[in-house]
Parts: sequence; structure tokens; C-alpha cells
Amino acid sequence: MERIENIAKSICAIDSAILAKAQKRLDNLTKPLGSLGRLEELAKQICGITAQETPLLNNKVIFTLAADHGVTEEGVSAYPKEVTAQMVYNFLSGGAGINVLARHAGARVVVVDMGVAVDLKADSRLVVKKINYGTKNMAKGPAMSRDEAIRSIHSGIEIFETEFKRGLDIAGTGEMGIGNTTSASALTAVFTHTPAKALTGRGAGLDERGLKNKIAVIERSISLNKPDPADPIDVLSKVGGFEIGGLTGIILAAAAKKVPLVIDGFISGAAALVAYHIEPKAKDYMIASHCSVESGHKIILDHMGLKPLLDLNLRLGEGTGGALAISLADAAVKILTQMATFKSANVSEKKK
Amino acid sequence: MERIENIAKSICAIDSAILAKAQKRLDNLTKPLGSLGRLEELAKQICGITAQETPLLNNKVIFTLAADHGVTEEGVSAYPKEVTAQMVYNFLSGGAGINVLARHAGARVVVVDMGVAVDLKADSRLVVKKINYGTKNMAKGPAMSRDEAIRSIHSGIEIFETEFKRGLDIAGTGEMGIGNTTSASALTAVFTHTPAKALTGRGAGLDERGLKNKIAVIERSISLNKPDPADPIDVLSKVGGFEIGGLTGIILAAAAKKVPLVIDGFISGAAALVAYHIEPKAKDYMIASHCSVESGHKIILDHMGLKPLLDLNLRLGEGTGGALAISLADAAVKILTQMATFKSANVSEKKK
Repeated sequence: MERIENIAKSICAIDSAILAKAQKRLDNLTKPLGSLGRLEELAKQICGITAQETPLLNNKVIFTLAADHGVTEEGVSAYPKEVTAQMVYNFLSGGAGINVLARHAGARVVVVDMGVAVDLKADSRLVVKKINYGTKNMAKGPAMSRDEAIRSIHSGIEIFETEFKRGLDIAGTGEMGIGNTTSASALTAVFTHTPAKALTGRGAGLDERGLKNKIAVIERSISLNKPDPADPIDVLSKVGGFEIGGLTGIILAAAAKKVPLVIDGFISGAAALVAYHIEPKAKDYMIASHCSVESGHKIILDHMGLKPLLDLNLRLGEGTGGALAISLADAAVKILTQMATFKSANVSEKKK
Repeated sequence: MERIENIAKSICAIDSAILAKAQKRLDNLTKPLGSLGRLEELAKQICGITAQETPLLNNKVIFTLAADHGVTEEGVSAYPKEVTAQMVYNFLSGGAGINVLARHAGARVVVVDMGVAVDLKADSRLVVKKINYGTKNMAKGPAMSRDEAIRSIHSGIEIFETEFKRGLDIAGTGEMGIGNTTSASALTAVFTHTPAKALTGRGAGLDERGLKNKIAVIERSISLNKPDPADPIDVLSKVGGFEIGGLTGIILAAAAKKVPLVIDGFISGAAALVAYHIEPKAKDYMIASHCSVESGHKIILDHMGLKPLLDLNLRLGEGTGGALAISLADAAVKILTQMATFKSANVSEKKK
């Protein structure tokens, strides 16, 4: 816990002097003032985060963390639980959505077993930080122990720091875990004081009856475990997941190291929510990639005051929306660093 | 005119059998059904446009057409007219926004002088299709002759066909022309029967007084010239521009050759509107990249029933939003062609 507190304490406010310099640079480029809209805002935010006037985004990483959820016993997912492990193999062999979109964005994918229910085949490309063989069924008791919640965050910090040493200029969050929209919905309900009914979606494809059951399961899990919103570790342990804890650690560690962090969809958003409730300043290091079809995601973004870049009806997770946004971030920074100025290109400025 | 009619006649309806095959392929990929949202729709549309089950987008081109507008005499722009020519040089030396974003998307930029007011320095990279030295002031008479309007469309067809021979799998439209939001606003008002006041924006940065003047100039140009919305060439000649005519030709030629065409912002949208009124089937070959800050753009998109991919408060033009959307189109097609299927990856499907 001390380690989490230390990381949280080391997250600084963003340097406003850098923001002003970035704005000045943007305003001198050969385009009408502000005409590249959110691309300009994004470039500026990345200057602020990295504390660099001309940041470089050479090393791009997407962290895709996998874990199982005991709550799948309650029939909350349209897919069988085995899919979590099967998809990890798919990530490792490069055939999943995140592999395709990460390659497109020039990002490497770091695949982590945070708590898949089975032992996975040994693979040098797989990072193993297994906290346990899936969480327990939160509808019958806490999903994990407090110690497991802390260890999952610690593991996320370690995962980030290892990749940081290898070179890491921008990171994206991603996840895989059958049942994890149930956990993300519960976390969101607790932190944002919203009824489960108002934020629970169909996940990977539940029908009407399945959705009703999922809402009831979330309500039961919350009333049974009584997670304390003032204690983020308590909330994570009672209704969270190991991949969510891992992502929380990654988010805190990225903010501490001044690395821009692109948040993917609803589950990544729930992890961002845990990180934000541990240290609100972490929010300034987050870039919201998109707004998911899962209705809880918008509630998370509004709660933290984040505005998504894309709205493409995505609901896959894995880090896919994050990969698209990393490509936008790359474009934004190139605008800042590669465009000619009015002076260098001999272009007349606006009439006075 | 016969050439335009022939091109328009050769635009076919999209093959629905291909769409069904693309949908089947998408549904077999290792992701919940439809979970990549608009990326999946986009991939499917590109299959339909190209009539290919596994299209390849290797050759990407952005056509950035420049021309001057006589209506700048009326003080409708925040920038001096000289900027059109200055920006052409900036495009050629690679320092403009479109150069940066096209490089990011892996697209080449084809820069065309459709009617800049001055003779530009000879440059082998510049395509010269100068119809005239800028249009005439539409507030005092037709912007161009009917023959010039036809020639501008012909030139666009030629520009497209030359690049098509070099290899062209997806194209984006772009433009530069001080004063051209005034022309685009007038075209939009005429074709969509909307009052100028409801669709005229600040362009590159007009103040309140400038905006009022711009609206009055557009109203005057329309009432004086009486463009006939049933005759798109008449509308183009009376209140259009040479770069807009050129883009109209590019759009028609792309549709005729089954090449996906990414429409940039408001001015490109006005060209799309002219093409659509010449041949409505051209619309099915268009991909709307983004929704511009210029309010007329949304009116155009609604009129044609196009839904933009991005909403990033862009208002630069040049093809910049198109470049970002070409990158999304690339990602969408890679999803279709590179992702593993449930069967190939041994992943269990949804519970029945």
C-alpha cells in the first residue's frame, strides 16, 4: 500500500508554462488559429504531460491485461468463460482486433495474465502476474482480498516500469476478461453513486433477460459487499477484477513518469476511475480515446471531466479504441513538430 | 458536357452481394458481433465500393486543389487573397497541415492549380489545370462562364484518371482558396434551399461584422445570379469556384472507377453536393471524414444522408480531415483482412 501511496504522491500537476509555449507554437503554424481543433488541444495536452515542447512519440505500447471473473457463474456474459484464455492465445499469435489496430498505430502489445482461471501455456511473450485463478463470485462475497487488490495494482506498476525502461512515449490501456463489464458496471455505480440500472449494458451481447439478470447481480453484489467509495482499494477488492487492478497500477505509474496514457473503453475507464479516486491529478495524464456503446462509459468520462476523441460505436475493448486514439495523438504531435510556420513558409498572416 | 454525362452514366449501384459476403466475414472474426461498430460498417462499405471481398488500400492519394475567388473583393475573408498562392508553395515544400497528415496516413498529396490568381513558379510536382486567374466576383455577376464550369469538372476527371493509372486505391479531397467558404455557403444554400444566414460560418476567422457582411454578399450573389438548383452546372458556374468544379470531377471519376472517396470538410462537401446533384449514385462512393465547425457542412451531410466518422472541431480544409479518415479506412480494412476467425484461432463462439 505504501508503494501505491508513494506513486500517487509523485504525480505532479501539469506545467502550465509548457502549455503556453505549445499554444504559441501552434498559433504560429500555417493554418487559421485553432483550425485543427481537438488535434491542437491534444498536441498541447501531450506537451503538458511530457513537459516537453516538442515531444516525440516513437515508442507506443498497448497493455492488454487478461483475467477471469467469478461472477460469470451468475450467467452475466453472452460468451463462455473459456474465451478469456482463448483470446490470450489469440493476442499472442497476433490475430485479435487489438493486434491489427496496434500494428496500424505502430504500437507494440504487451499481453499480461493478471488472473486467468487456468494456467496458460508458457510463452516468452506473455507477462505472467497471476494474482489468482480468476476472482471469486462477487454476488456471494468480495471478488478478492484487500491484499490481492493491492498486489494487482503493484503488478500494474511493475508491468509499466519494465516497459518504460525499454522505451515508452505513449501508452494505451486494454483488457480481456469474460464478465468484466459486470465488474466495471459495479465499480462505476459505486464511485459515481449511480443506480446499476442506469449504467449497465449488454456487454458482449446479452439479450433483454440477460441484461435484467446482470443488473440484479450487480445490485446484489453491491448491497452484499458494501464497498466504501471513499476507499478505492476496498471498492476494487469487493467488486473489481485483477486486470482492472493491474490497469489502475499502469495508469498511476504512467502519470508518475509523465507518460501520456490513452484510456480505451468501459473497463479501462473503470480502472481510470479507481486511479482517479486514489489520486485525482492522474486524470490530467489521461486521454479518453472514445465513447463506448456501454452506457456506463459516458458516466465515467463525465465523472472525471474527460471528453472522448472518437465516437465510433466501439465496444470490443482489448485496447482497440486506444490504438486508434494513439494514432490520432501521433498525428497531433506531428502537426506541432512538423508544420511550417507563417514565417518559415512566407505565408501572410490574418488581416488586422 | 457529354464527357460529364458519360462519366455519370458509368457510375453503378453498389453490389449488395459483396456487402453480404463482407458482413459474413466480419461476423466470423474473433470479436463480439458488431463490436467494432463504425469501423466494421466502413470496411463493408469499402468492399461494396471496390466490389472486392478483401480490398487492399495500398495507394492513397489526397487531391488538394487550389483556386482564387473574385468575391474576396467584398472582404469576405479574414486572410489576404495572396495566401492561396503562398499556401500552394507551402504544399509543394511539404510544410502544410495536409502534408503532415497525409504522410501520417501514408498518402501522397497531388497539388493542383485550378485557377490561382497569379502564375505560379514552374514546379514539376505542381499539376497545372488553370481555368482562369481566379473566378469573377459573384456579388457582381456569375463567378465563371458555363464553359469554365464544365472545363473545371473535366479537369478534375483528368486529374483523377492520371493518378488512377499510377495506382490509386482510396482518394481524399482537399482544397485551398481564400474566399471559398463563401462560395461553398452559396452552393449549399442553393442546393439545400436553406437561407444563407442558417449556414454561413466564420471561415478562417471572421469577426461578427465580417460574418454579417459575408451573409449579405452570399444573399446578393444568389439573388443577382439566380442559379437554378435543377441544373448543377449552372449553380457551379454562378456561385462556385474552380477548385470546387475540379473536385466535382474527381468525385464523379472516382465513383465511376469504384474508388472509395473520402470527403474532407465544408468546401469538399460543396463539391460532393454538385456531384450528387449531377448523379445521386455518386453518394454511395463517398465516405464523410468529419463534421466541420462550419455549420453549412452538417447541412450538406444531412442533405446527402452521410454520417461523418470524426468530430474533432476541424475547419482547416486542405484535405486534413480526409487524411485522418483515410487512416481509419485503412484500419477498418485491416480488421477485415487481418483478424483471425473464431475457427482459425480456436475461440468459442457466443452461447446459444
